[in-house]
Amino acid sequence: MASKDGFSWTESDGLSSGIPCIGAIEPSSNITNDESDFDVIVVGAGYSGLTAARDASTSGTLMASPEGVGRKEALTDSIDEGLKVLLLEARDRIGGRSWSSDIAGYPYEMGGTWVYWGQPNVWREISRYGMQDDLEISYDFSRGLNRYILASGQQSQHFTHDEEDALMESALSKLVNVDGSYGRVAVPFPHSLTLSPEERRYDQMSVADRLAEIQNDLTPNERLCAEAFVLLCSGATLETTSFYEFLHWWALSGYTYEGCINHLVRYKFRHGQSSFAIRFFREAEASGNLSYSFSRPISRIRDLGSRVEVIARDGKTFRAKRVISAIPLNILNDVQFEPPLSPGRKAAANVGHVNQTVKVHVETSDRDLRSFTGISYPHNGLIYGFGDGETPAGNTHIVAFGGQHNHFHPEDNISRTIAAFNGFTPMKVDRIVFHNWSRDEFAKGAWFFPAPGLLSNHLKDLRERQGSILFACSDWAIGWRSFIDGAIEEGTRAAATVRADLIGRPRL
Amino acid sequence: MASKDGFSWTESDGLSSGIPCIGAIEPSSNITNDESDFDVIVVGAGYSGLTAARDASTSGTLMASPEGVGRKEALTDSIDEGLKVLLLEARDRIGGRSWSSDIAGYPYEMGGTWVYWGQPNVWREISRYGMQDDLEISYDFSRGLNRYILASGQQSQHFTHDEEDALMESALSKLVNVDGSYGRVAVPFPHSLTLSPEERRYDQMSVADRLAEIQNDLTPNERLCAEAFVLLCSGATLETTSFYEFLHWWALSGYTYEGCINHLVRYKFRHGQSSFAIRFFREAEASGNLSYSFSRPISRIRDLGSRVEVIARDGKTFRAKRVISAIPLNILNDVQFEPPLSPGRKAAANVGHVNQTVKVHVETSDRDLRSFTGISYPHNGLIYGFGDGETPAGNTHIVAFGGQHNHFHPEDNISRTIAAFNGFTPMKVDRIVFHNWSRDEFAKGAWFFPAPGLLSNHLKDLRERQGSILFACSDWAIGWRSFIDGAIEEGTRAAATVRADLIGRPRL
Repeated sequence: MASKDGFSWTESDGLSSGIPCIGAIEPSSNITNDESDFDVIVVGAGYSGLTAARDASTSGTLMASPEGVGRKEALTDSIDEGLKVLLLEARDRIGGRSWSSDIAGYPYEMGGTWVYWGQPNVWREISRYGMQDDLEISYDFSRGLNRYILASGQQSQHFTHDEEDALMESALSKLVNVDGSYGRVAVPFPHSLTLSPEERRYDQMSVADRLAEIQNDLTPNERLCAEAFVLLCSGATLETTSFYEFLHWWALSGYTYEGCINHLVRYKFRHGQSSFAIRFFREAEASGNLSYSFSRPISRIRDLGSRVEVIARDGKTFRAKRVISAIPLNILNDVQFEPPLSPGRKAAANVGHVNQTVKVHVETSDRDLRSFTGISYPHNGLIYGFGDGETPAGNTHIVAFGGQHNHFHPEDNISRTIAAFNGFTPMKVDRIVFHNWSRDEFAKGAWFFPAPGLLSNHLKDLRERQGSILFACSDWAIGWRSFIDGAIEEGTRAAATVRADLIGRPRL
Repeated sequence: MASKDGFSWTESDGLSSGIPCIGAIEPSSNITNDESDFDVIVVGAGYSGLTAARDASTSGTLMASPEGVGRKEALTDSIDEGLKVLLLEARDRIGGRSWSSDIAGYPYEMGGTWVYWGQPNVWREISRYGMQDDLEISYDFSRGLNRYILASGQQSQHFTHDEEDALMESALSKLVNVDGSYGRVAVPFPHSLTLSPEERRYDQMSVADRLAEIQNDLTPNERLCAEAFVLLCSGATLETTSFYEFLHWWALSGYTYEGCINHLVRYKFRHGQSSFAIRFFREAEASGNLSYSFSRPISRIRDLGSRVEVIARDGKTFRAKRVISAIPLNILNDVQFEPPLSPGRKAAANVGHVNQTVKVHVETSDRDLRSFTGISYPHNGLIYGFGDGETPAGNTHIVAFGGQHNHFHPEDNISRTIAAFNGFTPMKVDRIVFHNWSRDEFAKGAWFFPAPGLLSNHLKDLRERQGSILFACSDWAIGWRSFIDGAIEEGTRAAATVRADLIGRPRL
């Protein structure tokens, strides 16, 4: 199976779009032309939508009046066949902003690579699907170059990985130490539903603002490291990165640099991210309650009170009692809502989030680079990179990240893309694989990252329902917002709400 | 509501058994005399049983032949009313080895106090129930004594909490540093389904064995700290504590002392543990599919092939297609299984686990002790204690832990129990609250902790099903074994298996 998404390049084949994906669904639809009425329509088949569709389609099915809840004898005559779920997806595949492509026997991660057992929703699912032993560690420092390269344009310094850790830890500790406790006092409960006044104050600051406060405390190398790491997280610029949100990531990760590495970039699926996502889809499918239609972008969602209509771009209209919109923030404005989006949600959609990460993979025959990590900043288009695996051919797989800082489109100029990799250290590039999220009309950016003010102004707005429409997306999750974990958190929440509405279950 | 479990003592009222519990269920049963046939019987209403009962009772209900799975059109005529679940519990309350008692407006935790967002199953549920803001931090070092007391019988040393952290970190780091990486190489995947040869080797060692290896590396204070902390975890003796299992806890906690504190003893429910457990029960109850009977200990479980019979001590017989036994390891032998327990499971039950934690709470009018932490070892019956909260009266709540080392029964001699608290530092004890897990016939011990060899020999045995009987208990969870998290992990697994059996869902 293949998706139309993604690009690959080799010297011999040149550039081509569309790459393999085990999450591409064929046939693309299991509905017949006359099927148009459902209990729930889920718009979007990323992890939020997949979780919502799975949980709704496998829900218990007793129909009970609110009065009858908990009184078993009242329920025996009120049996229904369950929540009929329609999953609509604009793309030809599941996963949204998170998917993997198997090329020459190796899974390249287009987005949302890493998971960790400290991410509760992700790990609960990994455990539930018995995939605990399907992980591997991205790094292998056992052989080869085994160096951290800090390329700043003027010079290229080499360090051991222990020196890298010490440098990064020192740099980030200074960045986050707003309270003398490295963020532990400032952000004590990173999963809290509300931002404290202090947290809101940090959300009014950009990381650039924070760096200005501590500019005399950072060595030049610490500054390079701190800035590059922040940009790796936000995919934005220092000026457009909310300082609070970086603190939030730091707090979620346990307030240490090692915690950040463990939670953010260390453990990935041996068979690629899509091997995980497909479990959700198959489980929902097996319930017998799941209808789906891929490659079916929508144009309008109309809440008519007694029902909601979802109108596809091709004119086909679907109806349901509830709609779960798993549409990301940056494309919310591309769907017409009736009644219109609430003022707060609309304002947030107008602002959008700022992450325009450029994530690119290469395969190189230089085996010594397996143990390379590095920063190429501030001059380069790719800022942060490292050896991420060994391909079946024995070559090295390197992943690198850029963003709004020196933003570029990898497919526009392959020579320049190769040059950006050589901005870390010289390497022969044999293969390039990537997904251009900035030009993706169904994402318009990578994982959520907010500019200053967005969260304090609109996080609550983004989480609220509007009538019969629920909004579920990692972009406004509480805990691991921006992550697969947050997507599952949101899908879980939406499905529970729909169950409460339609099956008479109590609100959790 | 009150449970028969637990003890409380005050000077004026003396000792009494039975204390309040919001998890005590009244009326104790919702079944009628002629109800005896169910889809699933869950034996035990701790977190494993509660999760299993909840997930089974709220499962989707379509009956499909395996051939029909995923083929929606084949299912329309095969509707069933859902999984009828019977929850049987020997006690008068939910929670098993984890429950809280509200006394004079303050929740005392009888077992299973602390939770953390790095515990995936627990946090997934906290998030799902919207309880993210229901946590508080046990410690308050903002006022009062603000000291760590190391009382070793010969002397009593006072340290700052920063010195405490440094001492504990140094001590534990030496204990776990079997690989030059503080356990990161030795136990790289603490959620793995299998123990590596190296892990099995550590499981053959006791902590006493490990301490013998490093005896020349530890200062006397480090040795006191390491031993007391290990005994806090295991409730056993150093000789009966599996070194691997301690490494496993360490790895689960992120390989740092701070991680241990965060995961093990820092964050608790403002309204007590039972405020969490009751959510599971109420959700299951609201499905309309839950029957239950409390104060109904069972004597036999007979797997007859086509059905399973569960026979209560009072002679009442219940039948179901599947039974989920959430019976803890240490009392497995008190139920008669037919056919008998598998040889491996039987051998494990004969060995049992070694945790005989003595957990005792006091209320003291000494407000300065709010910021006390301390160790009283090796001479004392209570080894590890600290200020854990402030009661509505403005008094200090102190919790302390003992175990098989100098084991005692707090109710047998209140003066001696008070003396054990004074073994940390002088204090006037106004109230004592505890549950004696060692004399509890339905627990025969506290949370699971294995002696050397038990896990390598029998963990797999304990996890296997026997015919129509599933075994779900935190005692043999994969990740946070012994914790509430592991109980939820196990209940989730059992319910998924039953769903696969009875609703024709695919195995996950």
